[in-house]
Formats: sequence, structure tokens, C-alpha cells
Amino acid sequence: MEPGWVWLCGAGPGDPGLLTLHALNALRQADVVVYDALVSPEILDWAMNAELVYAGKRGGKPSAKQQDISLKLVELAKAGKRVLRLKGGDPFVFGRGGEEAQTLLAHGVNFRIVPGISAGIGGLAYAGIPVTHRDVNQSVTFVTGHDHTGQAPGSLNWRALAEGAQVLVIYMGMKHARHIANELMAAGRPGDTPAAVVCNATTPDQQVLETTLAHLADDIEASDLQPPAILCIGHNVKMREALDWQALAEGAAPRSLDPLGVKAQGA
Amino acid sequence: MEPGWVWLCGAGPGDPGLLTLHALNALRQADVVVYDALVSPEILDWAMNAELVYAGKRGGKPSAKQQDISLKLVELAKAGKRVLRLKGGDPFVFGRGGEEAQTLLAHGVNFRIVPGISAGIGGLAYAGIPVTHRDVNQSVTFVTGHDHTGQAPGSLNWRALAEGAQVLVIYMGMKHARHIANELMAAGRPGDTPAAVVCNATTPDQQVLETTLAHLADDIEASDLQPPAILCIGHNVKMREALDWQALAEGAAPRSLDPLGVKAQGA
Repeated sequence: MEPGWVWLCGAGPGDPGLLTLHALNALRQADVVVYDALVSPEILDWAMNAELVYAGKRGGKPSAKQQDISLKLVELAKAGKRVLRLKGGDPFVFGRGGEEAQTLLAHGVNFRIVPGISAGIGGLAYAGIPVTHRDVNQSVTFVTGHDHTGQAPGSLNWRALAEGAQVLVIYMGMKHARHIANELMAAGRPGDTPAAVVCNATTPDQQVLETTLAHLADDIEASDLQPPAILCIGHNVKMREALDWQALAEGAAPRSLDPLGVKAQGA
Repeated sequence: MEPGWVWLCGAGPGDPGLLTLHALNALRQADVVVYDALVSPEILDWAMNAELVYAGKRGGKPSAKQQDISLKLVELAKAGKRVLRLKGGDPFVFGRGGEEAQTLLAHGVNFRIVPGISAGIGGLAYAGIPVTHRDVNQSVTFVTGHDHTGQAPGSLNWRALAEGAQVLVIYMGMKHARHIANELMAAGRPGDTPAAVVCNATTPDQQVLETTLAHLADDIEASDLQPPAILCIGHNVKMREALDWQALAEGAAPRSLDPLGVKAQGA
């Protein structure tokens, strides 16, 4: 029997239109699709004749252990299957794709990586928030909101981040939003720094909360927002007042043409 | 005449298979495609009956001024055209998409944003370098290597970045690599920190240089590498010794199963 292979593939943040051509091709060729909770049903519908294996739940429900998922991929590939491991977002952006690839390698299974649109970039874009903007930042820092045990991330230097990270994008950040905001403010980040929470980014259920660093945690608690969510902290958030293109397409007027008080390019 | 529209769209890092379905759809619908130098010819071949307008050169040659490009988009849309503004990578990751969108808004032109795979994530993935890895980092910082005038970025706090940015990914960083490396080392980042340069990422011309922070600038100078390039500085670079899947697919043996000395997951 020919040995199988595994494609470790990102499905993007939700909108099926943000899938890559490689991912679509893999969906059509795969014998088995091992998918995460954050992969849209519309995307799975494109799988041709593939067995669908669900690899995890969110929101406190038990999820398959990472080791079990990795070994399932090994088992399927060793049985000669063409396996598509389909993950939300990008497999290498807080997606544990490197760990899965390492396990495949250790077991002699062929694999390739297919990047996906990461929610911290594409999800914010759907909320009209550019992660970089000439008048705001020459850097952007992506942070995970919790480690693999669910705790607040322990290896981060919040003081240095407060000083050096011009814009912060936090994945899976709702649970520890208060801790994160407090750390940043204790290190000197102003409480009036604009902040946003984007839930279910790029899907029909997308919700956006605009607030400030000081009010972030309280406003989340007072809301009905649920994960998955991306947090963004920085002055780029203000650009949403101009660039909320989904609202504009539905006929809304822009709240501002120039939210940062800088003359628009080309004007 | 019906007013036109503009799609501000990322084409990804180069591999046509990393184009999104939305981008392919826009290529097929557009009357005009205004594209950057970094967009692959294979991708432009998918444009159906569209006029192709070239918006810039790289490598020191003159490029169309940002303001001229933005106003060209306005002009085309006002003439009723369906305009695809196709940019390398993602339009909001050091791509000036926000500026173009602001100009379109100021002139009453409808627009939407289509994110693309950013080279700092997808390009590194094709070199076998995960931008995040559980044993290495809970954050990753993306930095531009120069400002819009070509100078080294002036707004960055290198000391805070050296302390707080666990992994640094630098876009367009070759020109000022020595300055950047010196700033980071002066701020205490160890010279033996692994570093990599990935040129023409995801294309058949992809080249990868593995080095250290201390040797980064000298090794670039001694090489024949040319932009476009992504630099990566951090221990995640070592993972390439295991995860260089393009080399593995061509029959190469992995240089290491466990470059970071941590037991592989699932083993």
C-alpha cells in the first residue's frame, strides 16, 4: 500500500471566500478531513467523498487532546489515506501546526503546510481595522491570550510589550482580558488607548465591540459576546470609524473620513 | 453610468495556490487590475478580459507614487469600472491598504477589503519556520524594515522590542539588516539568536539563508540574495531543521527530529 500524506492546512477565519486554492484542492482530493471547531460548515461542504473527523470543541467542552489528534493523523496516513488536517486560521499562528508536523515527521509521515488567512489580520480587516497603518505603527505584535492549559500566557514581558508593541492583537483573549489590560496599564499603557473585540470575525455572526483599554474587560463582561474573539489594542482601531466597509456597503455613512486627524492620502 | 467599485485585495506571497477564492473571483470579474510588482504573473493570467495596470517597481527603480495610485483607482471607479487593486501579501500588513481605502472613501468610491496570506506568516511556513511554536513563543512581532521614504523605521523602541518581542519578523528588512541587528544586540538580544532570511518566499525562486543575529548582516552581504525578503529572528528558526517540508518532499532527510531539544508531541 502506498503511504498516505497529511496536508496541515489553514482554513482562514471563517468566510469560505477566504479559503486558498490549495486548501480547496486538498478538500477535493482528501480521503479524510480532520477539522477543528472553527472551520465553517460551508467549507466542509466542499470536501468530495471525504470522511469528516471532528477534532475538537470549544467553549469549555472537552476537546480531543493534541497528542491524540496528532497520532490520529499518523494512523490515517499510515493506512494510506490522503489526510487533510484543516485548522481555523493559519496552522502556525497559535495553531499548534508545528507540533503536529513534528509528530508526523517522527513517525515518517509525509506532510506539507498550507498557510491560511489568520484571524488577527483578516478578521480585523473585516471589522475595518488595518493591523498596520502608516500614521500609527511600524510594528504589530500578535499574542496568545492563554497557554495550552488555559492559563494567561506566562512567558510574556508585559512591561516591554506595553512599551514596544505599538499595536497588540490578542488571539483567544476574552477569558483573560482583564488580566491583560491590567498588566498593560500597570506598565504604563494609557487607559484611553482604543481597543476592539471582534467575535466570529468574517462570518455572518461577526460582532464588534469598540472600547478602550481601561474599559475593555468591563465592556466584555457587560456584553453578550462569546468566543472566538480577537482583541486589538492600539490607535489603528480608530480607523474603523472610516473603514468599516461592510457597514458602508450596506449604506451606512462613515462616522469619520479621517479618524486619526491626518489628511487622507491623495486628498 | 453605474458607479464602479474597488476591491483592495491581497494576492499572497507568490505561490498562486495561496490566492483566496475571493481574489480569484475578483480577477474574473474585474474590468481593470491595478497590480504591484510582487504579484505573480501566473496570478495575473487568471484575469478575464481585464486591462492590466502596473503600479510599481521594486529594487530602487522608481515606483508610482502612492498618491498617484490612489487617485488612479478613484478615476477608474468613477468611470464605472470594476477595479481590482491587487497587492502582494496582505493589503493591511505594511501594504498601505488603509491609505488607499481612505482616499477611496474621501472620493465616495465603494470599496471592499480582501485579506491575503502575508509573507511573514506564509512565506516563513514555506521555509519550514513556524512563526509561533509552543516551546518557543507566545507572541510574535511583525516589523517593517523601512518607512515610506526608505529609511530605517524611526518610531520603533528597539530596546523594548529586544526585551519583549519573543520572535521578530521583519518585512523588507534586507536594506537595513545591519542597523536592525545592531539595535537589537545593543539592547541585549544575544548575538547567537537564530535568524533566517527568506527571499522570494513560496515561489520556485525561494532562497533561505540560515544564520544568527550577529552574522545576519555580513551573511546577507556575502550572499547573492536579493529582495523581496522576510527576516526572522528567534528560536523558532531552528524548527526548519525538522520542518523544511519542501526539502523533505524532494527526498532530503530531516537534519533533526527535535531541533529545540524538546520531546516531540505524541512521541
